[in-house]
Amino acid sequence: MTVTATFVDSDTIEGQLASARAAIADHATVSRIVLTACGGSFANMQPNEYFLGSQAREIDAVALNAAEFTSRGSARVDAETVVILCSHSGTTPETVEAAKYARARGALTVAFTFDPASPLAEASEYVIAYQHGDGKSESYVGPALILRLVAGILDDREGASFAKAIDDAVAQLPSLVPTARAAHAEAADRWAFESRREPLIYTMAAGSNYGTAYSFAICLLQEMQWVHSAAIHAGEYFHGPFEVTDIDVPFIALLGLDETRPVEQRAVDFLTKYSQRALVIDAAEFALEGVAGEVRGIVAHLLFNVVLRTYADALADHRGHPLSVRRYMWRMDY
Amino acid sequence: MTVTATFVDSDTIEGQLASARAAIADHATVSRIVLTACGGSFANMQPNEYFLGSQAREIDAVALNAAEFTSRGSARVDAETVVILCSHSGTTPETVEAAKYARARGALTVAFTFDPASPLAEASEYVIAYQHGDGKSESYVGPALILRLVAGILDDREGASFAKAIDDAVAQLPSLVPTARAAHAEAADRWAFESRREPLIYTMAAGSNYGTAYSFAICLLQEMQWVHSAAIHAGEYFHGPFEVTDIDVPFIALLGLDETRPVEQRAVDFLTKYSQRALVIDAAEFALEGVAGEVRGIVAHLLFNVVLRTYADALADHRGHPLSVRRYMWRMDY
Repeated sequence: MTVTATFVDSDTIEGQLASARAAIADHATVSRIVLTACGGSFANMQPNEYFLGSQAREIDAVALNAAEFTSRGSARVDAETVVILCSHSGTTPETVEAAKYARARGALTVAFTFDPASPLAEASEYVIAYQHGDGKSESYVGPALILRLVAGILDDREGASFAKAIDDAVAQLPSLVPTARAAHAEAADRWAFESRREPLIYTMAAGSNYGTAYSFAICLLQEMQWVHSAAIHAGEYFHGPFEVTDIDVPFIALLGLDETRPVEQRAVDFLTKYSQRALVIDAAEFALEGVAGEVRGIVAHLLFNVVLRTYADALADHRGHPLSVRRYMWRMDY
Repeated sequence: MTVTATFVDSDTIEGQLASARAAIADHATVSRIVLTACGGSFANMQPNEYFLGSQAREIDAVALNAAEFTSRGSARVDAETVVILCSHSGTTPETVEAAKYARARGALTVAFTFDPASPLAEASEYVIAYQHGDGKSESYVGPALILRLVAGILDDREGASFAKAIDDAVAQLPSLVPTARAAHAEAADRWAFESRREPLIYTMAAGSNYGTAYSFAICLLQEMQWVHSAAIHAGEYFHGPFEVTDIDVPFIALLGLDETRPVEQRAVDFLTKYSQRALVIDAAEFALEGVAGEVRGIVAHLLFNVVLRTYADALADHRGHPLSVRRYMWRMDY
């Protein structure tokens, strides 16, 4: 996939975000929010389902794979529904179909995509065109903008006050991201060297960081490295998956900063006792002192995303298998 | 774990189910249903999230791991909430905690457990004590009773008419289950022999059957066989996981009968083209002709559960690793 560095400027993006937020704020009734996408974009929706699920008092929220969403055919997709969609290229057929499906039922549709001229953008009522590729700002990537919109919805429709703190945190990403990456560069290289022959690497997290663990498992490891993986929910670990734990079974376990940290910590405590191949990444080390305490938990996934990418880059290097290689995707019709 | 064959008789269970159903029907307002449990019991909740998610017009439904549910601390757990819980032994600490948490917030709590004197039963307002072990009736196992309650809720609170068809289907399980098992006995033995050295076996499904795929991955394979696994959502397959597909990578793919069958079929078509180790189990062969057409889709998971158990039993036999063996569970504190 060719990555272009031509993207929408930040002023335009701010305008698009403000328009979408205002449309949702002014909407007669918003009873529910559906967050829908596929693969890595679906993973980026999951922290927002957590944010809404843990903070909303009235609105219900669900995150669904786009094909699952459309095929279910729920009667609850209507004029009281906001459907937030994301597709990087804006061409993912299932996500485009989900936008058409939702819009035909009167839902308010908001699409996030890199390409504002894509089919997804065409199919959706509101579009926020995030930046991607060389020269992008870390404040204008997809996950950061989705989180800003959701914080705005919580403020506007639920009387919360998250948007300012989230906006402030996102504005700091251009310095937070390189700092977090640099802090993990050596550890990533060491881990990647030690892991270069592993046929399988599990990931584990809970709460707002589960989506990042899921993304790393299905996109970075399975898709881009052909390494077997599964994202294990830390709360589920003790009810089945922990029995595969052994001294030589590799795990990447995330310790976040949201309300589910104790759930993750309990799993990490067990894992590190019985596996010698556990990599634990703790968001407490992400230098988030400048981020308001009440949103550090939900902001952490934005840093986990980029820090884990450093580990993936290092793994690709030591395995001699570039992250861009595919055997099926983009090579055939399916 | 010792399996006792002393259980609550069917008349008592019918009374418990009727009481819980009536309490929910008579409840002033039911805005939302939370389905919460851990591990295999959580997997049994997932088809019911699909049933409610695809059929309810007003009530919203979410399925959450019990530790995730309690730690999130949503403001939306209140007197308008029905929380349905399940723990086989009734002793799962996270699920007991979830019942206490929900009840303290005024939610109506309904617990499913094998043991009506267990801590979960004590902590919950309504209890349905399902059968388990030698001599149980397939009509009175946990998953069948949870589905009956949820169908009742859809009828009583949403004006649907599923309960009679579901009750009729569940009444047929004592003949449907042995028929389905017998039909798969030879195939299961052959598959298990061919799979006995596999270190990893993926499962795949969508919609109301995803929970069964999840259960097989985390309980049967990871927990009871120490075989690596992951349940792949068929709609997510093409957005990452399909890149691990290869001629020698084993998958168990389910083809159900609900609205997501085309999503599963698309994944199966690709999988069977590129893997020589794909086992496809099709609910169209479950002899469900006697089950009303409009509920065959949601009933199928009850058959997948038992048919897949046949495959697990055969795998355990050929691997010389009984399903009852554990290295951590029940052997230590954690």
